[in-house]
Amino acid sequence: MTQTRFELKPYLTRKQDLVNECLKKILNQCSRNRELVKAMAHSLMAGGKRLRPILAIAAAQACGRDYMPALPAACAIEMIHTYSLIHDDLPAMDDDDLRRGLPTCHKMFSEATAILAGDALLTHAFYILSSPESVFEIYPDAETRIKLVSKIAAAAGVNGMVEGQMMDMQVHVPGFNEDRLACLKKLHSLKTGRMIRTSLESGAISAGALPEQIEILVNYADRIGLAFQVVDDILNIEGNPEIMGKAAGSDIENDKLTFPSLIGLDASKKFAADLAAEAIDYVSFFEDEAAGPLIAIAEYIVKRDH
Amino acid sequence: MTQTRFELKPYLTRKQDLVNECLKKILNQCSRNRELVKAMAHSLMAGGKRLRPILAIAAAQACGRDYMPALPAACAIEMIHTYSLIHDDLPAMDDDDLRRGLPTCHKMFSEATAILAGDALLTHAFYILSSPESVFEIYPDAETRIKLVSKIAAAAGVNGMVEGQMMDMQVHVPGFNEDRLACLKKLHSLKTGRMIRTSLESGAISAGALPEQIEILVNYADRIGLAFQVVDDILNIEGNPEIMGKAAGSDIENDKLTFPSLIGLDASKKFAADLAAEAIDYVSFFEDEAAGPLIAIAEYIVKRDH
Repeated sequence: MTQTRFELKPYLTRKQDLVNECLKKILNQCSRNRELVKAMAHSLMAGGKRLRPILAIAAAQACGRDYMPALPAACAIEMIHTYSLIHDDLPAMDDDDLRRGLPTCHKMFSEATAILAGDALLTHAFYILSSPESVFEIYPDAETRIKLVSKIAAAAGVNGMVEGQMMDMQVHVPGFNEDRLACLKKLHSLKTGRMIRTSLESGAISAGALPEQIEILVNYADRIGLAFQVVDDILNIEGNPEIMGKAAGSDIENDKLTFPSLIGLDASKKFAADLAAEAIDYVSFFEDEAAGPLIAIAEYIVKRDH
Repeated sequence: MTQTRFELKPYLTRKQDLVNECLKKILNQCSRNRELVKAMAHSLMAGGKRLRPILAIAAAQACGRDYMPALPAACAIEMIHTYSLIHDDLPAMDDDDLRRGLPTCHKMFSEATAILAGDALLTHAFYILSSPESVFEIYPDAETRIKLVSKIAAAAGVNGMVEGQMMDMQVHVPGFNEDRLACLKKLHSLKTGRMIRTSLESGAISAGALPEQIEILVNYADRIGLAFQVVDDILNIEGNPEIMGKAAGSDIENDKLTFPSLIGLDASKKFAADLAAEAIDYVSFFEDEAAGPLIAIAEYIVKRDH
């Protein structure tokens, strides 16, 4: 098998630019209350990696499809991701002052404005999913859109991301006496895994992928989603604060349940690498060229420094 | 014209029971994290008037249609209304300890749990709209459902209810130097009016109403929505705290912009009565019997004591 190495960096830059352009158009729809939209834009345009929307785009491509119809779902998912960060950072939750090297939304504006900016991003995500014609020229039909709303709401809500966030507040209590590793895996599968899985599923569904293609993507997603969290825990110990835009060591300081604290640093690194390898195995089902971005993203997730 | 007087009270009780039963089924879908679902249920089942879902049901009936397909949208709107109350009550927003005579969600649980319970209710509303088959036997087709998601997200979001809530924080500053009455009307039209309008529209759309019927309902809705707010301001001065489940006089104490403070108490009462009369005029287009509930609700809104 002769394989030209896929160049991930220019791919990520091009797709980030595309997503950023769409998100700017979406924000322009919301221009009446300037303070509110400034707060939404502050967090939405703060230079995120755009991992979720890029996974949606790459999923459509892996299935050999045009990725343009995946853009509404890709943007909606990034808006939901951003709302979750704004609310997680609030004083009543994680009480974080910095995010991506910038003041968090409630620090830059006010707590009330941050709550409302999060609420607005979440609500507008469903507006974009249901009425993509307001921003996008190409988008899925009504039947597909309602399926996307259902999938994304299920992943983001009371049996998905919000449940994970709630569990995150409950599980780190010292003396919590269930199987702590199983618990940590479940926590991450809810808090971040479900939305990462939904990013790939939504991209593929938007583009009209086949059920067997979607099944492969789900298997890939579940592995890279967990690998991403394991690496997050590792970076919290070993990461360079200047590159990460936030302080390291906070997990140990806060006595948080993490993979390194449960299985050790070396075993955590091996676990992340194994998950990435499994993920790559799954997508080897697709055409080499089509799967290039997904393979490179799985490799990047375990090698990243922020 | 011989007209049997429509009995509103038993109608409201029957429809409240129906809505409560559906909401309970919806909560049963969300049973994994008990603390989170308890917090959602605490606010959702706290004995609200169910005005919005009943308006959705009555709108379908006024158009001569079966109201059963309107129930998913009716419940989704009540969930969104409840989430907005939970977030409005937070310390960073209105900082209220009591709601409907019970401790507010953050007082009963914690601030973090209240933020998440609100987020979960909002998100799950869109799940119910898109996947009503998980709870309801009768529901609109996919094409209609995506229209409902779009309408409801638009009314609840950054150019609707959330914008109104943001404006509410900005507008009550003394010395605010725009046309204060126009401002107050705009504030209420955003903060509560849009969702009341959408309740009637969604009920009618769910039931397959005709565009000219929906137009009448929108005109009715905009008048009773504003009348409701004017009466709220009046009750804040004249209401009996024991019946209302909250203290009276807080608007004056907080130097809030209200209709009585701008145009006086008597003119406010006349304004509310005129709005209700206009609303009733609009729905006189419908069959007498079909419009009975909507007429009686308009009368009730200006006569209510809580």
